[in-house]
Parts: sequence; C-alpha cells; structure tokens
Amino acid sequence: MNPASLIHALDLFGIAVFAVSGALSAGRKSMDVFGVIVVAVVTATGGGTIRDVLLDRHPVFWIGDPTYLVVILVAAIATVIFTRFQRPPRVSLLVADAFGLGLFSIVGARIALEAGAPILIAVLMGAITGSAGGLLRDILCAEIPLILRRHIYAVASLIGATVYVLLEEVGLALTISAPVGAATVFLLRLAAMKWNLQVPSFILDDEDP
Amino acid sequence: MNPASLIHALDLFGIAVFAVSGALSAGRKSMDVFGVIVVAVVTATGGGTIRDVLLDRHPVFWIGDPTYLVVILVAAIATVIFTRFQRPPRVSLLVADAFGLGLFSIVGARIALEAGAPILIAVLMGAITGSAGGLLRDILCAEIPLILRRHIYAVASLIGATVYVLLEEVGLALTISAPVGAATVFLLRLAAMKWNLQVPSFILDDEDP
Amino acid sequence: MNPASLIHALDLFGIAVFAVSGALSAGRKSMDVFGVIVVAVVTATGGGTIRDVLLDRHPVFWIGDPTYLVVILVAAIATVIFTRFQRPPRVSLLVADAFGLGLFSIVGARIALEAGAPILIAVLMGAITGSAGGLLRDILCAEIPLILRRHIYAVASLIGATVYVLLEEVGLALTISAPVGAATVFLLRLAAMKWNLQVPSFILDDEDP
Repeated sequence: MNPASLIHALDLFGIAVFAVSGALSAGRKSMDVFGVIVVAVVTATGGGTIRDVLLDRHPVFWIGDPTYLVVILVAAIATVIFTRFQRPPRVSLLVADAFGLGLFSIVGARIALEAGAPILIAVLMGAITGSAGGLLRDILCAEIPLILRRHIYAVASLIGATVYVLLEEVGLALTISAPVGAATVFLLRLAAMKWNLQVPSFILDDEDP
Repeated sequence: MNPASLIHALDLFGIAVFAVSGALSAGRKSMDVFGVIVVAVVTATGGGTIRDVLLDRHPVFWIGDPTYLVVILVAAIATVIFTRFQRPPRVSLLVADAFGLGLFSIVGARIALEAGAPILIAVLMGAITGSAGGLLRDILCAEIPLILRRHIYAVASLIGATVYVLLEEVGLALTISAPVGAATVFLLRLAAMKWNLQVPSFILDDEDP
Repeated sequence: MNPASLIHALDLFGIAVFAVSGALSAGRKSMDVFGVIVVAVVTATGGGTIRDVLLDRHPVFWIGDPTYLVVILVAAIATVIFTRFQRPPRVSLLVADAFGLGLFSIVGARIALEAGAPILIAVLMGAITGSAGGLLRDILCAEIPLILRRHIYAVASLIGATVYVLLEEVGLALTISAPVGAATVFLLRLAAMKWNLQVPSFILDDEDP
C-alpha cells in the first residue's frame, strides 16, 4: 500500500468513526432512521466542508469523491443494526474517535498550509476540520455542544495542529511532522479521558442582559 | 407562458410557501415581526443557498435575482396580517409545502447534474435543496429539527430525486423525468400525511457518554 | 492617522466588542475556557464570514488578515480574567456593541455594493454582517436567538443600512453616507435600549402541526 492509499484509507476510517458517533447521538434522541443518516452525514462531513468552503476549495471533498458518502451511509446503517443486538463498544469508539480527531486535525492544517494560509489560520483550520462536525451534531440534537463544555477535545486538536504546523515551519519532512502532530492529539485525548482532565470553566454568575 | 417562465413562477410559488411555513413557526415562538421575517428568509432560501455555496455557484440564486427576497417579505408580512383574523388553513398549507418540496428537490438535483456532480451527489443536493431550509428553521426556533424525527419528509425528497436522476440517466427527456420525480415526492408526502406513515425510529437507550 | 487606518482600527474595535459579548454569553453557560474562545470567535467573525462566503469574496476577511483572530483571542481571555475580579460594565458594553453594530452594518452593505449587488441585497448583507454573529452565538448556547425575540437590534441594522445605501444611490460621498448610516444604527439602538422600544410580536397561538 503506497502512502497516498494509506492516507485515503485512514481518512475513510476517520469518516466512518465520526459517522458512527453521529448515528449514536441521533439514536439517543430517538430520531428516525433517516434523521440518523442526516446526523451521521453532517457529523462526518461538517468539519471538512466548512474548511473547504472557507478556503474556497472546490469541489468540496465529498462532492469530488462520493466514496465518502457511501462509507457514511454504510457506517450509519451498520450502527442502527448493530445496536439492536448489542450495546455500542464505548471504549473502542472513544479511542477510534480520538484517532479520527488526530488525523483530521493534521489533514485540515496541512490543506490550509498548502492553500497558502498563515500558520495561525492553518492551526484553526485543523481544529475546525477535527471538531466542527461534532459541534454541528450537537446543534442538530438541540444541545449545547459538548466540545464547548467538557474535557479536552478541541483543545487537543488545537495543540496537535500547532505542533504539526511548527514542525513544518522548522523544515521537518511531512512524514515526521504529520505523525507527530496526529499522535499529540491522540495521546492528549486519551490522557484527558483516562484522568478526566478538563479545561478550567468560566462561570459567570450574572443575570441575563 | 413558456416553460422557463412557468418554472420561474412555480419556483417563486415554492419560495412563498416555505416563507409562510417559516413565519408560522416563528409566530409559535412569539418572535417579533423582524424575527418572523428572518426565519421566513432562512426557511425559504436556506436549502438553495447551501446547495449553491457547496457547488460554488455564484451569484447565489437570491443574490442574483432579488425577486425572491421581495416574494419572501410579502409572504411573511401577509402571514402575520392574515393570522390576526383567521387561523392558518392547515391542510392547504401542507399540500402547498409538499408541492414546494417536490419542486425544489428536482430543481436542486437538476442543478447539481448540470454542474457535473456524480448522481449520488445530485440526489443529495436535491434533498438538501428541498429540506435544509426547514432544518434551519427548526434550529433557529431551538428545536430538534422536525424532519429528523417525524414522518416521511426528507425521505420523500430523497426518493423523488433518485427517481428523477435515474430517469435522466436512462436518457428520458427533462419534460418527463422532472415532472415524474416531483410528483413522486409530492404523492409520497401526501400519502405519508394521510396514513401517518413514519420511517422506523432508532431509539438508543444508552447513557450519555 | 489616515482614513484607511482609522477604519481598520474601528473595525478591530468592533470585532473586540463582539468577542467580549460572545465570551460573556459563554460564561453564563459555564463553558470551559476553550468553549469561551470558540463562542467569541464565532460571534465576532460569523456575520462577516457568511457575507464573504455568500458574495464569493476570498480570502474570507479573517483568513486574509490574522490580526482579527489575535484581537479576538486577547479580548476573550481578557474577559475571562477581568470578570474574576469585577462585574462586566454592562452599560459601556451595550454602548460599545451598538457602535460595533452600526459600523459592521455599513461595512457589510458597502462591501456588497462594491461587489455589484443590487441595493436590496446590499441592505441585507449589512444586516447579516451586523447581526449574524450574535445569532450564531445564541445557537451555540442553545437558545432561541435573542435578536429574533427582543428589542430593536437587527431592525436598527436594517434601517441604518437602508439609509446608507439610499444616500450612496443619490450620489453622496462615502465620507457622508457611511457615518450617517452608522450613526442611524447606533442612535436607534441606544434609543431602543433607553425607552425599551420593541418591534411588535407575532404570537400565534396554534397547536404544533
């Protein structure tokens, strides 16, 4: 398997994981099967779509390559069928999600750098690519987005993307900078879950204006 | 009336119906008149706008032709005035909405095909054009979008768009494929309302992660 | 200070004010510090981003000039620190917000006119630039957007943008039309707060369909 195929395969794996996470959220809200598919599609494609629209990259990634949609459909339907028989394997899913977050954060930052974006923007595009899908998922489910309230999620994405962009800037090869950045996100996220690390809260006890 | 004018007239009719549906939702949330207009605009233009931005079609349809906005404003204000005197004619509105859904689903799929999108993408663009406005409407009203929970709504749009795209693919003329596709959406939607058809729910009785 | 620098400075001031408003809203929802930053970024950049994407202006304003993001980060973090020691200065913030609304409404309308948009569209782009950030802020906080329910907010933006566009159309210099338009928004907003002016509500006492 050459590197390009490997990255494409990893990318599709990340998309599938995000689709499963969307389908599970929709199930907790008792949506119908179609709603499950919509939430799965939005969760899996949301981050990359916002990135592509903001950077004016056309065709948007899933419009140019329908494989993504096929993978999402299969993942969503498989989730519905699987959970009729068994509880979702929580820990494996969280680990897979951390992997997807790491991968997408670096892919997003990389694409922004290639489009000539300044490094601060590239870091932000990494975080958007990794986290915006989950944010849209929670908006569709009419909840205050989880990533805004709990644990180190998008923060892990931001830190890993920063590590990657800085390694690129100092001239390291992509084959080093990208895996190191992705591993940073992945390990931070696992550590945050294991030891229940949280970013400090900002609690403003103020009346509504 | 030539075919192009007919389609434009139908299109404006569909826009007006969606604007009314947005205005009624806003009224149920006791928004002010301005909020009513915002929700009407978003409901009526949302699907087509997302389609145009995703496909990189500029100007976005309502930016290129302000008639749409004028129609929406008139429809929203007429709704506010009308409902001071009379209850909204529920059944007529649902039928008109089903008609708009059918029309927009096919228009959206057609535009995507013309832009060279693969058929799976064209079907999705049809569904987005038909249903995304209603989805945004429900988000603005801070509700779990109705189309994700109840009845055959976006599903009708997806099925009709699929019928249309397949008829196009086998080489039928647009004057046949488009009306057949639109009628499929329309009739499915009417049948779903009459017999209260629903897509099976996916209920996941699981704790929040 | 030449006019261009003055406008850029005012623009950054408006961005900072909107970032503070986003950070305060996030604090009322007890988000973590990262969530605060996300909401601040979305509130401050949302309106201009939607405007740029709809008008196909690339790079989007904050992608082309990272100063905006830096200002937002500083404003959000300063808000978190400041409110540990003191209550936010409510009145000053509302006045600053009215100023930002006035400025952004005119900037948005101006940019749309320069892009060749019809005047109705230019007015709408002014209102979007001024108010969409606040709307997205409330969606992220899972509330029915405030601007849809209370007081003269986006309405002030619409009226001021209309005044500006009409003065442009009759041929007045930008140095007159723009300040008059911005002042219209600003004063309307202050008057609305002082005398608690409201747009009439549209209350539809109807069952959910």
